Amino acid sequence: MTEFELISQYINSQSLSRRDVLEGIGDDCAILDVPENKSLAISMDTLIEGVHFPKNTSAYSIGYKSLAVNLSDLAASGAEPAWVTMSLTMPESDENWLTDFLDGFFTLAQQFNVQLVGGDTTRGPLSISVQAHGFVQRPILRSGACEGDLVFVSGYLGDAVAGFELCSEDDAEASSCVKRFNQPQPRVELGQAINSIATSCIDISDGLASDLGHICQRSQCGAEIKLESIPLSASFLQFYQQTDYGKVLGFGDDYELCFTVAKGKQDQIMQISESLNIKLTCIGKIDSDSGVRFVDSDNNKIDIKKGYDHFK
Amino acid sequence: MTEFELISQYINSQSLSRRDVLEGIGDDCAILDVPENKSLAISMDTLIEGVHFPKNTSAYSIGYKSLAVNLSDLAASGAEPAWVTMSLTMPESDENWLTDFLDGFFTLAQQFNVQLVGGDTTRGPLSISVQAHGFVQRPILRSGACEGDLVFVSGYLGDAVAGFELCSEDDAEASSCVKRFNQPQPRVELGQAINSIATSCIDISDGLASDLGHICQRSQCGAEIKLESIPLSASFLQFYQQTDYGKVLGFGDDYELCFTVAKGKQDQIMQISESLNIKLTCIGKIDSDSGVRFVDSDNNKIDIKKGYDHFK
Repeated sequence: MTEFELISQYINSQSLSRRDVLEGIGDDCAILDVPENKSLAISMDTLIEGVHFPKNTSAYSIGYKSLAVNLSDLAASGAEPAWVTMSLTMPESDENWLTDFLDGFFTLAQQFNVQLVGGDTTRGPLSISVQAHGFVQRPILRSGACEGDLVFVSGYLGDAVAGFELCSEDDAEASSCVKRFNQPQPRVELGQAINSIATSCIDISDGLASDLGHICQRSQCGAEIKLESIPLSASFLQFYQQTDYGKVLGFGDDYELCFTVAKGKQDQIMQISESLNIKLTCIGKIDSDSGVRFVDSDNNKIDIKKGYDHFK
Repeated sequence: MTEFELISQYINSQSLSRRDVLEGIGDDCAILDVPENKSLAISMDTLIEGVHFPKNTSAYSIGYKSLAVNLSDLAASGAEPAWVTMSLTMPESDENWLTDFLDGFFTLAQQFNVQLVGGDTTRGPLSISVQAHGFVQRPILRSGACEGDLVFVSGYLGDAVAGFELCSEDDAEASSCVKRFNQPQPRVELGQAINSIATSCIDISDGLASDLGHICQRSQCGAEIKLESIPLSASFLQFYQQTDYGKVLGFGDDYELCFTVAKGKQDQIMQISESLNIKLTCIGKIDSDSGVRFVDSDNNKIDIKKGYDHFK
């Protein structure tokens, strides 16, 4: 069976067939309808073996992650996912690998009602380019943070770096951190829930220090973050004897959302946290200084080594 | 200067800033507006060095072609180009190479009023994934050809294979065929002009035999093509002593349009040909047999060796 046949088989077996897809795969272009009162939100990311995922990553995880990182961008804009295109380059035809890869990809696609509408397969060193398309009425941008706003993060930070460091070990798959690194859960519902409240939002792909830095830069403000407020998971604390905040805040790959809200909206955020069952933690506030600063419990400024030297 | 800075500089120097781009590069997603009465047409193609272009191809041509092949898909659907995203993977940072590449890419983008709205750059073996986005009210599909329809092609076929074979020679750039291979002109205006007349359309990327075969398959019909009607350019005829139709019809990469129209519409097509100054040739007709058949001037069936063994 050729790759195309395998992929076609997969697509045909998808129960998923959205009404806004006028033409899917099989013509020169996919033809799609965007709802009249919505804008189109798009994000394209490429994953390359040895750069964005270690060589020993399972095909299932690669398929899953290649979609997850793009849905995470839609989440950060507060958009509702709709369609996806994929360009898959693989060195040789390996039916088992491809089946597992598509399993991972379509498991996540199904979860968010996302239809694959185009793309291609080519021969070459393993890499996957995915573009996700969604709808949004009032996008959350990076540029809207204001002095006095509170800074929140979803979930826990640092699990991904722990997962990455655990990857090389034998019982790797047993760890929840490895799963969090290989199969991050895009915060799609959260992005839509905070859409009308958040003043700015970004997904944590490069590490909080760098990503919150983007919000500060685009919003022309600064942020002071309390290290003791950074949410760390039990798995993370079990793995590391001592917390290296350079790793937690510099590695990235957590794909949690970092967002800002006006001070008075804290209660609404807590209600969203409860209704979605997603931990949301206030970790600091936006101010008029420049850049992102981290402080300890005594308000002493702590220098976080940025650009932790990982596989990226 | 980093790649990002170079690309940003390029983007900033683009005079092009479309009003339907609410947010371009720089946020988690690009935010875009599709006109209310139009559908969105999208196409994604990946070019890989040594697979889709020879290793000695100039950076300018790679940049140009990576956009051209995608605009060609929009043309085949009769869509009007609007935005583009690009994921560029390159083995090392080479400012000269990147400048030439962007020159080629943006020269074509400017020509069609196409704005780059997103993408990324990564380190790895040279490959370029581009997704083009356009608008269309009534897309031309591959599935609409009917028995009795006339089959047309634009321009000349075979220049690309001649260009490919000439590529390895020293005076390569002197040849118009090499330019046609490296920098194909997407037939965007033609696609829009035939939009309401053509019953089906495809762009010739894999060779007429295979591409017209897709129309026949999706339209559940056949086609009889007269070899003597296939338009060959003076440059092509100068290069080859004898015409190898296996190459002309099997190599592809011409990026001309092949389309079908009802018999009575021939005059309208000739008017379009004249007003756009694009050669349009009737090469045969759709019938109820199956597959694509080629005949000589005595109506003898000629076996065209498909799947010409080229670099793809």
